[in-house]
Amino acid sequence: MKVIVDLTIIPIGVGVSLSRYVAACEEVLNRPGLKTALHANGTNVEGEWDDVFAAIKACHETVHGMGAPRIHTTVKLGTRTDRVQSLEDKVDSVVAKLG
Amino acid sequence: MKVIVDLTIIPIGVGVSLSRYVAACEEVLNRPGLKTALHANGTNVEGEWDDVFAAIKACHETVHGMGAPRIHTTVKLGTRTDRVQSLEDKVDSVVAKLG
Amino acid sequence: MKVIVDLTIIPIGVGVSLSRYVAACEEVLNRPGLKTALHANGTNVEGEWDDVFAAIKACHETVHGMGAPRIHTTVKLGTRTDRVQSLEDKVDSVVAKLG
Amino acid sequence: MKVIVDLTIIPIGVGVSLSRYVAACEEVLNRPGLKTALHANGTNVEGEWDDVFAAIKACHETVHGMGAPRIHTTVKLGTRTDRVQSLEDKVDSVVAKLG
Repeated sequence: MKVIVDLTIIPIGVGVSLSRYVAACEEVLNRPGLKTALHANGTNVEGEWDDVFAAIKACHETVHGMGAPRIHTTVKLGTRTDRVQSLEDKVDSVVAKLG
Repeated sequence: MKVIVDLTIIPIGVGVSLSRYVAACEEVLNRPGLKTALHANGTNVEGEWDDVFAAIKACHETVHGMGAPRIHTTVKLGTRTDRVQSLEDKVDSVVAKLG
Repeated sequence: MKVIVDLTIIPIGVGVSLSRYVAACEEVLNRPGLKTALHANGTNVEGEWDDVFAAIKACHETVHGMGAPRIHTTVKLGTRTDRVQSLEDKVDSVVAKLG
Repeated sequence: MKVIVDLTIIPIGVGVSLSRYVAACEEVLNRPGLKTALHANGTNVEGEWDDVFAAIKACHETVHGMGAPRIHTTVKLGTRTDRVQSLEDKVDSVVAKLG
């Protein structure tokens, strides 16, 4: 089952600057089988369900390993059985409808 | 790694009434090792990371199997290494601070 | 337009314990016209759109005023035109479908 | 108070294809004072709090007006008092930390 995800990870208890942790997570997500796209409020990820969630778990482990005692993450995820859809397809389908 | 999750599942393409699908997902989540608490906008789940995400995957498979061609899910999740915390602990810690 | 919301507020840069800030926000939400229900991963709020979002804004102002330099909040929100639904109705409709 | 938002709107009860509604919302968000950036799982918006939430309300009104009886929306939002940050700043700060 393929899944498209939007991932936002917030390390807690490490001060106000989080980009170092987000970048480390970004590097964890860049693994074979996953397609990723960083945006201002998170990272879009496309891949097989098990691969995507193994990467998110590895991201938590990495960020805890960097010293963050607590992590709050938000994941929006979509699956569909009617057709295959990529990250680009999702943007294109909206852009095509703009006036 | 233990995780506390808030799960909201939205089947798409099955009309406006979603409670039948949410109830089916609820039953999938009620498995050994997981603690769940239904609320007005989702379900809180507490358990080991792999168990929780296996249950969420099974929930998607079940809801697709009921005929939903598309599912949009939001997961808020928290992990911490500084101490063990339960669903009840999280509510209690806020209530204790109320004036 | 009535709205039902699930609100999770995460103050950033104030250490690992957040319950003091969440409790302060909870008290801001307890205002005439809003119904609230605290749960393990957030607070459900029911009310008129403008009242609910004025309260969420006041919550951010309060938590910044307590010293949090940065806040990350997640809001899940639902509106519907087909019928009026309360926080309790949403739980009841799922419970009624459980086997 | 400036806010940076990630907005995902899911119309319910209008079938499986949602891009027409998302595009209509996108056009509502394109108003003076707001900066927007569409991505695969939502739209990032930057602006003053009241302007941003007025636009999100207008988006719900527009999509209901197109015939959607129910809407589920997820908003991730950030405010900060320590410094001014733009959508581009948020991406740049992560990219600068990548190995």
